[in-house]
Amino acid sequence: MTSAEDRLFNEIQAIRAIDCHSHVPADAPHARGLADLLGYHYYTELAHSAGMPAKAVDPSRPEADRVAAMVARLETIDNTVQYGWLMKALRNLFAFRGDRLTAETWPEADRAVAEAGARPGRYREVLEQSNLEKVFLTNAFDEDLSGVDREVFVPCLRTDDLVFQLADASVRQRVAAKTGVEVGSADDLREAVRRLMNYFAEQGAGSAAISLPPDFVPAGPDAGEADPLVARAARGEDLSVDEGRCLAAFVFETVAEACRDFQKPLQLMIGVLRSVYPAGVAGGRDLFAKTGTLHQYAGLFNRYPEVDFTVSVLSRTWAHELATYAWIFPNVKPSGHWWYLNVPVHIEYELRSRLEAVPKTKLIGYYSDMYKVEFGLPKFTMYRRALSRVLAREFVEPGRMSEETAVATARLLLRENPKRIFGL
Amino acid sequence: MTSAEDRLFNEIQAIRAIDCHSHVPADAPHARGLADLLGYHYYTELAHSAGMPAKAVDPSRPEADRVAAMVARLETIDNTVQYGWLMKALRNLFAFRGDRLTAETWPEADRAVAEAGARPGRYREVLEQSNLEKVFLTNAFDEDLSGVDREVFVPCLRTDDLVFQLADASVRQRVAAKTGVEVGSADDLREAVRRLMNYFAEQGAGSAAISLPPDFVPAGPDAGEADPLVARAARGEDLSVDEGRCLAAFVFETVAEACRDFQKPLQLMIGVLRSVYPAGVAGGRDLFAKTGTLHQYAGLFNRYPEVDFTVSVLSRTWAHELATYAWIFPNVKPSGHWWYLNVPVHIEYELRSRLEAVPKTKLIGYYSDMYKVEFGLPKFTMYRRALSRVLAREFVEPGRMSEETAVATARLLLRENPKRIFGL
Amino acid sequence: MTSAEDRLFNEIQAIRAIDCHSHVPADAPHARGLADLLGYHYYTELAHSAGMPAKAVDPSRPEADRVAAMVARLETIDNTVQYGWLMKALRNLFAFRGDRLTAETWPEADRAVAEAGARPGRYREVLEQSNLEKVFLTNAFDEDLSGVDREVFVPCLRTDDLVFQLADASVRQRVAAKTGVEVGSADDLREAVRRLMNYFAEQGAGSAAISLPPDFVPAGPDAGEADPLVARAARGEDLSVDEGRCLAAFVFETVAEACRDFQKPLQLMIGVLRSVYPAGVAGGRDLFAKTGTLHQYAGLFNRYPEVDFTVSVLSRTWAHELATYAWIFPNVKPSGHWWYLNVPVHIEYELRSRLEAVPKTKLIGYYSDMYKVEFGLPKFTMYRRALSRVLAREFVEPGRMSEETAVATARLLLRENPKRIFGL
Repeated sequence: MTSAEDRLFNEIQAIRAIDCHSHVPADAPHARGLADLLGYHYYTELAHSAGMPAKAVDPSRPEADRVAAMVARLETIDNTVQYGWLMKALRNLFAFRGDRLTAETWPEADRAVAEAGARPGRYREVLEQSNLEKVFLTNAFDEDLSGVDREVFVPCLRTDDLVFQLADASVRQRVAAKTGVEVGSADDLREAVRRLMNYFAEQGAGSAAISLPPDFVPAGPDAGEADPLVARAARGEDLSVDEGRCLAAFVFETVAEACRDFQKPLQLMIGVLRSVYPAGVAGGRDLFAKTGTLHQYAGLFNRYPEVDFTVSVLSRTWAHELATYAWIFPNVKPSGHWWYLNVPVHIEYELRSRLEAVPKTKLIGYYSDMYKVEFGLPKFTMYRRALSRVLAREFVEPGRMSEETAVATARLLLRENPKRIFGL
Repeated sequence: MTSAEDRLFNEIQAIRAIDCHSHVPADAPHARGLADLLGYHYYTELAHSAGMPAKAVDPSRPEADRVAAMVARLETIDNTVQYGWLMKALRNLFAFRGDRLTAETWPEADRAVAEAGARPGRYREVLEQSNLEKVFLTNAFDEDLSGVDREVFVPCLRTDDLVFQLADASVRQRVAAKTGVEVGSADDLREAVRRLMNYFAEQGAGSAAISLPPDFVPAGPDAGEADPLVARAARGEDLSVDEGRCLAAFVFETVAEACRDFQKPLQLMIGVLRSVYPAGVAGGRDLFAKTGTLHQYAGLFNRYPEVDFTVSVLSRTWAHELATYAWIFPNVKPSGHWWYLNVPVHIEYELRSRLEAVPKTKLIGYYSDMYKVEFGLPKFTMYRRALSRVLAREFVEPGRMSEETAVATARLLLRENPKRIFGL
Repeated sequence: MTSAEDRLFNEIQAIRAIDCHSHVPADAPHARGLADLLGYHYYTELAHSAGMPAKAVDPSRPEADRVAAMVARLETIDNTVQYGWLMKALRNLFAFRGDRLTAETWPEADRAVAEAGARPGRYREVLEQSNLEKVFLTNAFDEDLSGVDREVFVPCLRTDDLVFQLADASVRQRVAAKTGVEVGSADDLREAVRRLMNYFAEQGAGSAAISLPPDFVPAGPDAGEADPLVARAARGEDLSVDEGRCLAAFVFETVAEACRDFQKPLQLMIGVLRSVYPAGVAGGRDLFAKTGTLHQYAGLFNRYPEVDFTVSVLSRTWAHELATYAWIFPNVKPSGHWWYLNVPVHIEYELRSRLEAVPKTKLIGYYSDMYKVEFGLPKFTMYRRALSRVLAREFVEPGRMSEETAVATARLLLRENPKRIFGL
């Protein structure tokens, strides 16, 4: 590491960051034992990919057996960055001193996690140590948000079920239970979405969010065309594939409208294909295809100039489009490095490409996407390191930026931009 | 910067380069004030993307107001390489000494640009200082080239309107006025294109050029099939979308034929989508989609072995194909780094990939694509720096090339290849 | 080169590697003269791309004339990595001391190659010097394998002709001659493929292999649907394009079944388009298109969990999918860096991306794809260097791996993984 890189890293570590996307459960935000860490899909799916039978981590098995199975496989994945997150979390948050987890050392580590996890307010301790000021949640649309610790957590309305499962009676029942609206028409739907957004806004939500398949085209029908589709779905009638797409596009449009009306950003997470490998472990079945283009979203970006779209893509092939659409569209904000792109090699390339050609005030540097707060520290540290490296090697050392400006730029990406864009 | 890189950069700065693609207007080649620099679409579109209303730079507003609006937004884009071009141009060409343009400092800079711009032959002075021997223009097909300063400028026949707008009566009238041919048939069209090319060749043109959308397939109908389409277009009849494509492909074919007959290269600039963001500032509305493949052009490359196709692509996803098609097809020459790929992170990767696998005699290193000659210096300097870095780190330091060979290779890319390929 | 990189390179050079894919002919594995080296398609196609007429290396011309024509063009391609392989082979294997091959120096080099080539067991000498333990061949399905030197060579059943040319009577005759089965039905086909695989397995084959176009979708019809297609093909009836695809997918499925039943990996080499440039030199006519997605293969990976698919792709745009599918699917193993991706710039990026997110036990580092054993040394040296660089810069220097672990990881990629996966 060069010395400019070292100095920048120290400064960037001191920036109190905002984590604008996670799956932390408000009622169980931190780990209670090693199983909560090793059960993260990154570890189970990689261990399975390396040969561990999926049933070795089936929830029906005793926790200790699952942990032992995982520990036995860790060596096969110790080259990965994900393994690095685990060891860093154990070392920094639980004072683990071993070289690696083994059949001998894991029970002690497990006890350390359990003991720390039993302390009141443990998640706040972890976030403090991670230098994270706020962490966004991803809440089901009918979640009760009254118990959320709003000091550190920010609700976010996840709309996947609404948009893609409205034909499912149980989804409509959940909507009715939460909003009092029995959705039977396009107007009902708009009203229901409005009420959901209103509730979330009242509870301090920072945004709505949705994950989308690569072929999704957000070009919905108008309400007149959508009305019969909503009605038929409400009556439990089967829709054709095309009609289902049409309905989804219409629901999506009502979400975009609600974002506009409530002045909330919409987090677009583009590109996922669900259950590509159905025999995989839980959370380790989804992949993507590189097909499609961000051009599919141009109409949306044009229709809603008032809505900030914070956009993540899942395929490397979409990354250049994302940087350029953000270069041109005022309301497109590239956001973090999602899932299969959350790997240093890709982060460094894309980060450099955004820093070289997108206004610095538009970049949301990073989010953790984590399921337990313990992963915030190693994931953000990985990003802070990538940011230091790119700023040092491509901006400071070639004389394109002073170190002060580089640190100020990092502060925008990690803290000030998400605060401003999400209205915190 | 390593010392090999330093030494190479010094040598490469001394190479007198050829700029084979620009939009410099022959009758107003240099800036007359700061508005000519800040009005470059890179600045207005980035400032708009960062939040400046498009109307702030509407041509109807007084120039000083536009400049002031731009200056007020510059800080939001000071991380970008484009901002770097501006400051380098101001410092090297106008002795600007400030740290940044501000409400206080811009009027002085404006005066400096105006004073320099008033000097006779200013553009020659700028090109001299930029170490550029020749700059290609991009001329409308009916432009009068008699006043072009052929000492430094090289005409180039832009064929976009011909190929994609022939159904437009005003285009056909311009053709008739310039060539004397009222295009009513496929044969007329061939004759008109031939006369245009003849005129351009007589005026020293280096090539024809065209920008193309990502789904364009240059597989035209034969003259027999095209004849009725040309005739119907000439009568002002509406063509279907498919017929329009067919007509465009036929006109394109006549351009390729003319290039063959007049032994001129054809500059293919592949991938642009026009007006994706219609509410953007002038020049800041176009983007691209990553769809399509260079394989669409394989037939063309096979049909015209005598024509040099100098090819630029707009999407990073096309770049690998470009390097490999150039590796196989003798008549495919990768050319520069266009627009949304004209960013160091992409330049360095693609440059390395071309240098590692394409014959060095086929590479056209760079062109400026500029609208005023003042941007030649910072853009070419950016490229010379990328070239020094790639040659030093990937070729000289690992022992794959001597420094002498590296400089000789740079000379091919910047000067000797474009001179040979474009017949200068 | 950093010192960690130096030290790693020395250690990695000492690893006895397995080369799991080549086109070395068992009966003429090493060069008998310079023409065998300069006749490699990389040199003839690059020289042709740089301006040498294809007929200059037509097999009908005297060998010395062909060599002289090639030597005269070498300077135009001396920047390429392929040129680097040639010079390294000449220097390390034939004690060539000149700076370059010239009209003066090539006859001596030719004599050196001829003399060495005349020594008994020369290919073993070359492989020993290259530190390659085993080299896979790519054998025609009806090849007689009895003479193969099984000490150093491993047969591999190439299935391209079977899958894509079964409608060709000569292919069916070759099948009949080899297996005794006259293929007239789906069952016959299965039986024939089974017999071929059985023969190859008995002869120590390590795998089957196939190269595939980018639009191939391995989703075959069932035997009932395929039966009439096989029957019609067997009667010499013409199949429509769709029927031809359907038949190919069915034959492919029988190959996958045979791999499952004989527990052999299937080498998938995805993305090639044949004869894109028909006027090119022999071996220099194929290219690719970036279209398609690895998602086309998800069904296959799901249907055959017992088969190891060692996968190579030809387009850079597929590389991210490959790394992620290998991250999720236990039976997907990324393999080497194929053809148009076998260039350091791409190798380094993809190698890093695999090392950062795919279990280390699943990575097959490299194969030579060579036609004469002399190219194993320079190609593997290029890869060993890339591996040293990536491990040093991205893993050892940032503290993510010790040097010992880095060398052990390299040993997995170069040796232990291919030995285990291919059952050597």
